[in-house]
Amino acid sequence: MIRCGDTHVLCTASIEDRPPPFLKNTGLGWVTAEYGMLPRATHTRGRREAKNGQSGRTQEIQRLIGRSLRAGIDRVALGERQITVDCDVIQADGGTRCASITGGWVALRLAVNALIKAGDVISDPITDHVAAISCGIYAGQPVLDLDYPEDSEAGTDGNFVMTGGGRLIEVQMSAEGATFGRDEMTELMDLADKGVSDLVAAQKKALA
Amino acid sequence: MIRCGDTHVLCTASIEDRPPPFLKNTGLGWVTAEYGMLPRATHTRGRREAKNGQSGRTQEIQRLIGRSLRAGIDRVALGERQITVDCDVIQADGGTRCASITGGWVALRLAVNALIKAGDVISDPITDHVAAISCGIYAGQPVLDLDYPEDSEAGTDGNFVMTGGGRLIEVQMSAEGATFGRDEMTELMDLADKGVSDLVAAQKKALA
Amino acid sequence: MIRCGDTHVLCTASIEDRPPPFLKNTGLGWVTAEYGMLPRATHTRGRREAKNGQSGRTQEIQRLIGRSLRAGIDRVALGERQITVDCDVIQADGGTRCASITGGWVALRLAVNALIKAGDVISDPITDHVAAISCGIYAGQPVLDLDYPEDSEAGTDGNFVMTGGGRLIEVQMSAEGATFGRDEMTELMDLADKGVSDLVAAQKKALA
Amino acid sequence: MIRCGDTHVLCTASIEDRPPPFLKNTGLGWVTAEYGMLPRATHTRGRREAKNGQSGRTQEIQRLIGRSLRAGIDRVALGERQITVDCDVIQADGGTRCASITGGWVALRLAVNALIKAGDVISDPITDHVAAISCGIYAGQPVLDLDYPEDSEAGTDGNFVMTGGGRLIEVQMSAEGATFGRDEMTELMDLADKGVSDLVAAQKKALA
Amino acid sequence: MIRCGDTHVLCTASIEDRPPPFLKNTGLGWVTAEYGMLPRATHTRGRREAKNGQSGRTQEIQRLIGRSLRAGIDRVALGERQITVDCDVIQADGGTRCASITGGWVALRLAVNALIKAGDVISDPITDHVAAISCGIYAGQPVLDLDYPEDSEAGTDGNFVMTGGGRLIEVQMSAEGATFGRDEMTELMDLADKGVSDLVAAQKKALA
Amino acid sequence: MIRCGDTHVLCTASIEDRPPPFLKNTGLGWVTAEYGMLPRATHTRGRREAKNGQSGRTQEIQRLIGRSLRAGIDRVALGERQITVDCDVIQADGGTRCASITGGWVALRLAVNALIKAGDVISDPITDHVAAISCGIYAGQPVLDLDYPEDSEAGTDGNFVMTGGGRLIEVQMSAEGATFGRDEMTELMDLADKGVSDLVAAQKKALA
Repeated sequence: MIRCGDTHVLCTASIEDRPPPFLKNTGLGWVTAEYGMLPRATHTRGRREAKNGQSGRTQEIQRLIGRSLRAGIDRVALGERQITVDCDVIQADGGTRCASITGGWVALRLAVNALIKAGDVISDPITDHVAAISCGIYAGQPVLDLDYPEDSEAGTDGNFVMTGGGRLIEVQMSAEGATFGRDEMTELMDLADKGVSDLVAAQKKALA
Repeated sequence: MIRCGDTHVLCTASIEDRPPPFLKNTGLGWVTAEYGMLPRATHTRGRREAKNGQSGRTQEIQRLIGRSLRAGIDRVALGERQITVDCDVIQADGGTRCASITGGWVALRLAVNALIKAGDVISDPITDHVAAISCGIYAGQPVLDLDYPEDSEAGTDGNFVMTGGGRLIEVQMSAEGATFGRDEMTELMDLADKGVSDLVAAQKKALA
Repeated sequence: MIRCGDTHVLCTASIEDRPPPFLKNTGLGWVTAEYGMLPRATHTRGRREAKNGQSGRTQEIQRLIGRSLRAGIDRVALGERQITVDCDVIQADGGTRCASITGGWVALRLAVNALIKAGDVISDPITDHVAAISCGIYAGQPVLDLDYPEDSEAGTDGNFVMTGGGRLIEVQMSAEGATFGRDEMTELMDLADKGVSDLVAAQKKALA
Repeated sequence: MIRCGDTHVLCTASIEDRPPPFLKNTGLGWVTAEYGMLPRATHTRGRREAKNGQSGRTQEIQRLIGRSLRAGIDRVALGERQITVDCDVIQADGGTRCASITGGWVALRLAVNALIKAGDVISDPITDHVAAISCGIYAGQPVLDLDYPEDSEAGTDGNFVMTGGGRLIEVQMSAEGATFGRDEMTELMDLADKGVSDLVAAQKKALA
Repeated sequence: MIRCGDTHVLCTASIEDRPPPFLKNTGLGWVTAEYGMLPRATHTRGRREAKNGQSGRTQEIQRLIGRSLRAGIDRVALGERQITVDCDVIQADGGTRCASITGGWVALRLAVNALIKAGDVISDPITDHVAAISCGIYAGQPVLDLDYPEDSEAGTDGNFVMTGGGRLIEVQMSAEGATFGRDEMTELMDLADKGVSDLVAAQKKALA
Repeated sequence: MIRCGDTHVLCTASIEDRPPPFLKNTGLGWVTAEYGMLPRATHTRGRREAKNGQSGRTQEIQRLIGRSLRAGIDRVALGERQITVDCDVIQADGGTRCASITGGWVALRLAVNALIKAGDVISDPITDHVAAISCGIYAGQPVLDLDYPEDSEAGTDGNFVMTGGGRLIEVQMSAEGATFGRDEMTELMDLADKGVSDLVAAQKKALA
C-alpha cells in the first residue's frame, strides 16, 4: 500500500512461471500492469468498471505503468516468466498513475527478491529504481504533485517517469484549452528531478 | 473495513438524493449493493472483472447483498433516496458474501446516522441489524464459517442471513455432488442462530 | 415437454462424446444445463435474450439446474462424456426453474437410457430421481407451487430440490422486504417433502 | 404453431399501443419481427444465441420477415401502434425463414382480428395474404421446399415472398460455388407461383 | 479504387498462405470479404462502426461480396490459401455493394496475377469475371444504377450479380411497402444483362 | 487528404449545430475527433476495428487529436456547436497521429471558413495553427519523422504538438526498454521547433 498525500494505492505483484505467448522460446521475461479504481475512491462515487468495461483512460494508464516498470528491468536476467503488477486505487486525490508506478516498483522489487531468494533467478534483473511524479502549471506557477482540486483547474499537467539515476523514461505534458512555453517545460523538468529523488528515498525506506 | 478471519472487505455506503427511476414519485427509498473482488484477493491471482465483465456469480452476490440489507430498512422512512453499498474484497479466505452483508450493514448504519444528524430523515429507517454467516458440512460435520480450503472440499455449503431479532431473511444451502438430510439442516440452523448473535455483538462494538 | 399448471417447458438432453476441457483424462463425466425463455412466454412480452445477452438471473437458473441434476448422477459411471440439458420455457406461470429441473431430469433419464441401450455405459449412472418444487408464504400462509400472481406478491419464496429418496440437494428461501421465522421454515419443508413425492410419481408415469 | 414438413415454428404477435420512436406523430403503424432458433431445433445441437449474441444471419432473417409482413399491411389503417411478430423455431428441417413468414402472417391476422373486434381499428389494415416458399436447384432440377439435406447440397437456393394475389415482395436467389441461367430462374418462379397458392389455401384453412 | 458515378470504393486484396481452419487439409482455398464505410462517406455523417460494432447490414453485405467472388473462382486451383478482399467506401452515392463486388473482383484479379507470376499457383483459379449492378423501380419505371435520392424513394430495389458469361450468381429484389409483378422482374433482368456487360468491359479496361 | 511521406490520411470536418450535452446552455463550442485505420493501411493487413471494437490505442489517439485541435480554438467565438474531425488512415508509414493532427487542422480551418462565410460565427474562432511532429532516438541519434521501420526499432519515440507561434500543446516522449537523458530531450525539442515550422508552412500552402 502506497500513500502519497491522500492518494492510497494497493500494489501487488504476482509471478507466473511462463511468459506471455509472444515471448515463448525467446529467453525474455515480461512485466505488465493492471490498474483499477474502486468506485468510492473519488469524492463522488464513480461507476464500477466491472459493469461498464475498462475505459480507454484505464487502459492507457495500465500500459504506462507496465512500460515504465519494464524500463528498470533486464528482461534477459528475468528469464521466461511474467510478473503482473496490480495497482488498485482505494482512495484518490490526484496523481494516481504516479503513485501506481512508484508503489508498483516496490511490489516488483519484493517479488523479484523472492525469486532471488528461491534461486529462480541468478543475477538481479532489476537495474534501477523507477518512480513517477505528476506536475502542472497551476495559477501560472509550475508545481509538483497536484492534488485533485488543483489538477482539475490546471490548464497544463503531466507526468515524469524517471530512474533512480535521473534518466527519463516517460515525459507527458498536456494542455487542455491552453499552451505552455519552452521555459516552463524546463522549469517543470527541474522540479521533477528533485521530486523523483525524494520518491526514490521513500522507496528505499519502505523496503528497509 | 470488516475483517472475518483472513477475509477483509472494504464496505462503503454512498447516498444519492434521488431514487432509482422505477421508484420516482412513490415516496419509497432503495438500498442496492455492488460487489467486487480485487484480482489478488485470492491465493492465486484471479482475472480482473473490469477486463472481462461481471460474472454471473458476482451479479448473484450483489443482488443477495442488496436484498438482505433492504430487509432491515423501512423504505417509507428512508424516503425517495438511494443508498449504494459498495463491498470490495481486498483479501479473501471464504465467506466473502457473508462478510459483505455484515460489514455492509455497518456502512449503511453510518450513512443513515449521517442522514439523521443532518435532519434529512425524521424517524430512523433502520428497523434491525442484518448479518450473515456461512456454514457447511465438512468431513461429515455441520460447521460455521468455512475458510477457503474447507469451503472447497465441503460437498454442502450455504449462507444464512438473519436479523438481530433472529428472524430469517435468506437461507441458501447447496450441495455439489452430494445430498444432505433434514436433521443436518436443523443442526445448521441452530449453529447459524448462535453465529449471527456473535456477529451482531461485533457490529455493535464496531459502531461504539 | 413438461407442464406444471400453466408453465410449459421444453426439455431436451444432448450427449457429447467428450467431456468439458477441465475433465479431460479424469474418467469423470459432466451434466450441464442451459435455460431460456421465449419473449412471449410471459403475460407481457419480455425482451429477447439473444438481443440483450443472458441476464444474471438466467445464468443463476442454469447453474442451479446443472448442479441439481449432477446430484443424482454417478459421474464415474457416466464416463468421459457431457450431457447438456436444454430447458426452454414456452409458456410461463411461475415456477419455471422447478419445472425445468423436474422435466430436465426426465430428458436426462431418456438420454441415459439411450446410452445404456447402445452399450456405451455399463452400469446406470443415474442414482436417484431429482425434482424441485417452489414454495412461499402467501397471505400469511406457507404454500406450494405459487403461480405468477401469487409469486409476485409473496414476500418470501423459494425452492427445494430433492432426490426421490427425500434427501435435500438445494434449499433457497428468500425474503424481499420481509422476514420469516424458524417455524415457517419447518412448515415449508414439510410441504416440500410431500410435493416432491408427487412430482417423482409424475416422472415415473411420464417415462412409463 | 406452423408445421411445414418437419419444420415447426411457434409464431405469436404482440400489440403495443405506441409506435416505434421514428413514427411518433406520423399516424403510421409498424410491423416488426424477431426470430430465434432453439439450440436443439437442428439435428446437431447449435449454440444458444442468448450466450453468443444474434448472428448476422438471424438479424438478416428477422429484417426479411418484418419487411415481408409490412408489404401486406396498410400502415395508415393500422394507426400509431406496433405489432411484433415473434417466430421461434422449435424444430428445423429447412425453410425456417419461409415457414416464419407464412406462419407469422397467420399470427398477425389473428392479432389484427382482435384489434378489429375491440374497435381499435376502423377498417381492416391487412391488404392481402403474405406467404413465402423456398426453392433451389438440386441435382440439376429446380425444386420447391428443400428439406435440410437437400438444402445443404443445393448449389443454388433462395426464397420467394408473394402476396395472395400473386405479386412479388421479395426474390432472393443465391448460388454458392455455382451459377444459374435465366431459364432456370423462370422455371423457379413458375414453381413458386404454384407453391404460394397452396400456402395461402393452408393459411385460410388454419384461420377457419 | 473503383468509381461508379459518385460512389468511390477502395478495394484491396490480401493473400494469406494458409486457409481458414475449416479448410485445413482439404486442398481448397477461400475468398472472403470485409466491408466498411467511412463515417463521412454519406451526405450526413454516419456513426463510426468501430465504436458501435458492425451492423447486421454490414455483415450481410460482406457475406454477399465474398459469396459473389467465390462463384468466379476454382477453389482447387487456388490451393490452400485465403484471399481477403477489403472494400472500404470513401464516398457513397448508392450502389455501394455492387461497386464493392465489381471493384473487389479487379483487386482479386490483380492478387491472383501476382500468385501466378510468383509461380505459387499452376493454373489460373479465376474462371470468369464477376460484376454486380443495382436496379429498382423508380417512379413506376424499372431503372439501373439508382443513385442515393432515387434509391431512398424506390419502393422496390435490388441487385444482380452475374458472371462475364451472363450466368446469374445472385438475384435480390426487395420491396418495402410495395409489391411488383413478374413482367417488371423480367424487364429488370434484361436491363441487368446489359448493365453487367458494360461493367465487365470497364473491368477489362482497368486491368489493361 | 494529407500526405506525409508514405502516410496518407483522409481528414474531414463535420459541423453539428448543437453542442454535446455537457455544454448545453454554456455558450461554448466543442471540437472532437475520431480516428480509424483501414485494415490494409499497414504493410501487413491489420484487423478491422469494426469487428473488434476500438482498441485503447485508437481511443488514446482520438483524444489526443481532439485535445490538440481545441488548443487552437476560441470556444466562445465558436459558439454552441460541435465540429467532429474524422481522420482515417488510408496508408500508414509511421507518424499517423501527427499527420492526423496536422491534416485535421486544415479540415477544421476549411469548416470554420464555411461558418464564417455563412455568417454563422462573427469573429474567427481559430486562434492559431496547430501541427504535430513525431520524433525519436534512432541508432543513438535524435531524429524527426520516423518512418515505420525506424519507429519499430527506436527505443524512444514521441510527439510534439505545437502552435504556429511555437507554444507547446502536448509533449509525449516514451521509452520502451530504454531511457534517455535531459540533453537528448533538449535536442529533440529543438528539432521539433523546426519541423513544426515547416508543417505550418505546408498548411498555409494547402489552403492557398
